[in-house]
Amino acid sequence: MEVEQVVCLPRLSRVAVCGGTHGNELSGVYLVRELQKEVMEKEEEEEEEEEEHPSVSMVLSNPRAVQQCRRYVDTDLNRCFTRADLNGPASGPLPYEMIRSRELNAKLGPKGRSGAVDLVCDLHNTTANMGLCLIAQMPDIPMRFIHFELSNKESYSLDSVGKHGFAMEIGPQPHGVVRSNVYTAMKAGVQHMLDWVCFFNSGTLFEGESVDVFTMIKHIDYPRDIGTRNITAAVHPHLQDRDFCLLRPEDPLFQTFSGETLRYEGNEPLYPFFINEGAYYEKGIALSLARKRRVMIPAIRVQTEQERQAHVRESASEEEDGL
Amino acid sequence: MEVEQVVCLPRLSRVAVCGGTHGNELSGVYLVRELQKEVMEKEEEEEEEEEEHPSVSMVLSNPRAVQQCRRYVDTDLNRCFTRADLNGPASGPLPYEMIRSRELNAKLGPKGRSGAVDLVCDLHNTTANMGLCLIAQMPDIPMRFIHFELSNKESYSLDSVGKHGFAMEIGPQPHGVVRSNVYTAMKAGVQHMLDWVCFFNSGTLFEGESVDVFTMIKHIDYPRDIGTRNITAAVHPHLQDRDFCLLRPEDPLFQTFSGETLRYEGNEPLYPFFINEGAYYEKGIALSLARKRRVMIPAIRVQTEQERQAHVRESASEEEDGL
Repeated sequence: MEVEQVVCLPRLSRVAVCGGTHGNELSGVYLVRELQKEVMEKEEEEEEEEEEHPSVSMVLSNPRAVQQCRRYVDTDLNRCFTRADLNGPASGPLPYEMIRSRELNAKLGPKGRSGAVDLVCDLHNTTANMGLCLIAQMPDIPMRFIHFELSNKESYSLDSVGKHGFAMEIGPQPHGVVRSNVYTAMKAGVQHMLDWVCFFNSGTLFEGESVDVFTMIKHIDYPRDIGTRNITAAVHPHLQDRDFCLLRPEDPLFQTFSGETLRYEGNEPLYPFFINEGAYYEKGIALSLARKRRVMIPAIRVQTEQERQAHVRESASEEEDGL
Repeated sequence: MEVEQVVCLPRLSRVAVCGGTHGNELSGVYLVRELQKEVMEKEEEEEEEEEEHPSVSMVLSNPRAVQQCRRYVDTDLNRCFTRADLNGPASGPLPYEMIRSRELNAKLGPKGRSGAVDLVCDLHNTTANMGLCLIAQMPDIPMRFIHFELSNKESYSLDSVGKHGFAMEIGPQPHGVVRSNVYTAMKAGVQHMLDWVCFFNSGTLFEGESVDVFTMIKHIDYPRDIGTRNITAAVHPHLQDRDFCLLRPEDPLFQTFSGETLRYEGNEPLYPFFINEGAYYEKGIALSLARKRRVMIPAIRVQTEQERQAHVRESASEEEDGL
């Protein structure tokens, strides 16, 4: 590589790994507990951390829902992190998750402020056959794959409390169940993320590469009975488990409970994901559809700690000169 | 076939198909609703039923749990059908499912009495990779495959309310999710069962055959932390999804969350089933182990309706002679 671009970015000193934001997504619950245990054992060994290592806090986000092995107690915690939610009046009885989102904001935020942790990694499971995905609502994380463009520019999820954040979503795993292969993939994913932060902090050269980014375009609900609102069809067996495989106009979409095939009526071929996610029946989402873009990430070298400090000294000296 | 044994059994006139006994096992919920709709449409056509057809009632067993998409509201309905549960004092506030089990006993039973329906088919889903299984707690159903021998001879499940009964269990399907392939298999299973009842009632010759019967020997719990009782391991990836495949001594059983393999310490090779069923974490069951027996069912011909009536007339005449 001949051209090398050095970018000036602050180091990621504080990282939070959160599990149990949905209390029945068990890989994250057990991984956070395991990592907490490993950290305690490590502290006993009194190993000195190297400079590039961030401090990592493990957080069980919704302990009450974990206790009950339910997604949530009163309302979906992962929708409670808009500024309005976090800063609204405290009068009257709040849903448990609204109280908890403020506690988490105090611990990991405040959202949008300089005191917030540098990176939040929020662990999730899905019943959809999505493999390991990174989901971000913010536009500037190079390692994201699924991208929710928010029209009102306000993110609502726990990972938005940090300066940077993303959800790590792994499936298929039924809610209320932990599958060893999914747990192990999540553990490896978190380890990769922490390694990446160390590389980032130490000023490693990141080679340029291309990444497929799936930008969410729309949700599709199940067909429903007009009167009862009960669903009248399941995801078609030809579509089930085929997350991220192109869905073309006229492809089978649903199979009604009486056996009829309903087809995709859109004009544009799109990529389905979150196909038949259990928690989304109540949200009116049978699957989401995305447009795929290949994004080229140029080769960059993040500055080393020495360069960072030199840069800070330089800026200070320039400021002095300017006075 | 030369030898033909005619057995005298009363016809199965009334059959109940129950779904939603666990409110988040959705194939049964949607199948019962679909069959209710199909029966209503059929009634509008005013087709006359043939003699061998039983009357079939479709029952949504736990509507409140279905509404909330949870296994149960207060307690597991499918454990509320012992005689003590059904006939205990009504004083004091009862759990919802105890009230409901009495309603169902009034509708489909009374358990152990001549007024009970002839056959109860109770529809269930499991997160385990068990395919389609029939489970019976009673010792005399030829079509059962999994057999729970009850030491106290008292069955506790909904299907025990009828004169005969069994659970139809299909997986893998996450709870709170309906998968089209699982729904379709269940629908076919119910249709086979109803066809079988018609053959039975019409005096069909059943050819002899052998059936593998898995008799439950014991349950195995997850390894747990002594203090918190939290699980410390998941089912080993080599065992996950291998229901009904022989588990031998020293085979991998669990993988701890720190990555260690724990092995099966039993002396006898046994057949695992209900491996990693989501609803059984709270029951302390990671998997169940069964002994397999091959049972030979001799060729039999059930008597026809005419033979039945002749038999009834003969008995009456014999009784008169005896007087």
